[in-house]
Amino acid sequence: MNENLEFQKLLQKKIDNKTKPLGSLGKIEEIAFQVSLIQKSLEPKIQKPLILVFAGDHGITEEGVSLYPKEVTYQMVFNFLQGGAAISVFCKTFGISLEIVDSGVDYEFPSDLLIHHLKVRRSTRNFLKEKAMTKEEMLLALERGKKLTEEKIQTGVDWLGFGEMGIGNTSASALLMSEFLGLPLELCIGKGTGHSLEGLDKKKNILQKAKNFHSLQNPTPEEILQTFGGYEIAMMAGAMLKAYEKNIILVVDGFISTAAFLYARTVCPKIMENTFFSHKSDEKGHGLMLEKIGAKPILDLQLRLGEGTGAALSYPIFQASISFLNEMASFEQANVSKI
Amino acid sequence: MNENLEFQKLLQKKIDNKTKPLGSLGKIEEIAFQVSLIQKSLEPKIQKPLILVFAGDHGITEEGVSLYPKEVTYQMVFNFLQGGAAISVFCKTFGISLEIVDSGVDYEFPSDLLIHHLKVRRSTRNFLKEKAMTKEEMLLALERGKKLTEEKIQTGVDWLGFGEMGIGNTSASALLMSEFLGLPLELCIGKGTGHSLEGLDKKKNILQKAKNFHSLQNPTPEEILQTFGGYEIAMMAGAMLKAYEKNIILVVDGFISTAAFLYARTVCPKIMENTFFSHKSDEKGHGLMLEKIGAKPILDLQLRLGEGTGAALSYPIFQASISFLNEMASFEQANVSKI
Repeated sequence: MNENLEFQKLLQKKIDNKTKPLGSLGKIEEIAFQVSLIQKSLEPKIQKPLILVFAGDHGITEEGVSLYPKEVTYQMVFNFLQGGAAISVFCKTFGISLEIVDSGVDYEFPSDLLIHHLKVRRSTRNFLKEKAMTKEEMLLALERGKKLTEEKIQTGVDWLGFGEMGIGNTSASALLMSEFLGLPLELCIGKGTGHSLEGLDKKKNILQKAKNFHSLQNPTPEEILQTFGGYEIAMMAGAMLKAYEKNIILVVDGFISTAAFLYARTVCPKIMENTFFSHKSDEKGHGLMLEKIGAKPILDLQLRLGEGTGAALSYPIFQASISFLNEMASFEQANVSKI
Repeated sequence: MNENLEFQKLLQKKIDNKTKPLGSLGKIEEIAFQVSLIQKSLEPKIQKPLILVFAGDHGITEEGVSLYPKEVTYQMVFNFLQGGAAISVFCKTFGISLEIVDSGVDYEFPSDLLIHHLKVRRSTRNFLKEKAMTKEEMLLALERGKKLTEEKIQTGVDWLGFGEMGIGNTSASALLMSEFLGLPLELCIGKGTGHSLEGLDKKKNILQKAKNFHSLQNPTPEEILQTFGGYEIAMMAGAMLKAYEKNIILVVDGFISTAAFLYARTVCPKIMENTFFSHKSDEKGHGLMLEKIGAKPILDLQLRLGEGTGAALSYPIFQASISFLNEMASFEQANVSKI
């Protein structure tokens, strides 16, 4: 403990000796501080940034909760690989590696397709009628997320962003948010990919029915995840837990990514130490979700796309924070008068 | 006019055909739209980004309105050149060119120093006792800003960020804000580089006295600028006006940069078409300043440093916006189902 306090003092001193008024670089200083603390280094580095996009389908789409047909999930996987999706373009622009994970897409991808073939099942079940997953499937999804992340970290990944693709997954995430945070469901439901008011009402009705149908009483985190989660959500949560265990930088994206994080932080509160919240999305519940867990988002670009796009767009801010700490001169070095 | 509407329709169609829900990339789409409109191109480019940092001293520092001694202005100029300042580090990180302008620093720089030697005078006058500049000096500062910008644009600069350095210039800017926007001075004064509450009270008293002393009645924009401005502020305003005239992208930084912009937009309202507001700073008046002119900042990183640091940090968002428009696939190209 003392050793850690000692380090924090040294770190704060390094930050405060930079040629700028105290605290005047705001979030840049905060990010530099947290990254240094994670890496226990006064000269932190980010050498291998990666965004994993977990894809899965949701049985609830049978009920018409989503504006897009579920085929879009697998179609977008091909689009990611061909470089045409937003996340592909942003990762290329900023030099971030991008890898796609089939967690539970309702489509048989060719086995030589360059994705991680970790499908648990072709789509979850319809949670209006039964639990979305069996317990075994949920555990398998968590486990596969952990194993994949362990492998990636072995290759040197030190900055990991968590994206997703899954038609219907704002519905699953709204229920996870409501259950994990004990909030009325209506505060958790937004327009998703762009519902009209009519579509939104329908979505609200169906999700309320589903919540009532299961009527969970003091559920364990696993029960919540199993009942309403998605394979991509559970796998992402497993990946987050492993990333924390291996002490790298975690970068959460938007509404669905944060919903997966709700599970991870419930079973492992200390995960907050390694986690950055890249942005506040325009999906209605996201701001409240972040607030409830004390998360301070880096950006607010009114995104509501998912895929890890917010995480990707936050990456240059990390680069700036690292450069700030490593490259800026101190008052002494620069011969600038200090107050 | 019709031609322009036609172009806007085509542009919106290109944006809406990208493989993502309508509007789901928020500010990224808005920036792409505005940049395309400026360049009248469906394939916009940013090829030569530059940040100009205008430096100048202020006579009002005699009154003790600032926490730092005025020597810091020239010391920081050397720090910029040696690569040790925040703006140097961020520009290097993101591949932005950085050039420093001596607009009115109270120091004789060696004539072979690699800065733009455009000094109007060694420091403005103390506006508690007289106008900060003569009319001739103000016009000269505006003119030199225009000429420099014209030269830079001739070398291909197409994205121009406006930074500054000048101990005492939050004081000057507070008065400019109050006069240009017709706001009570107290709403315009903040802690600057980090005053205590006591220091802040002193600053408020002195600036209120200065406002009362001049007691401007229906002033022209030039009178306001001449009375309270700085050489770096006037030169920056001139640079902004030329950048608009030559139709490039203008990127405003924080409180002082926006104060300079207040003059520019008063004499040339259409400048808004080419202007982006990189961030909302933590200096108290900046949020209100932006709100009053209908500006929507891209970032909110709680910066209060100046130097153009917010402009630099916004640059990757421009890169992402350009890549979005040029590289993302349409629904047709990607064979993704469209609603």
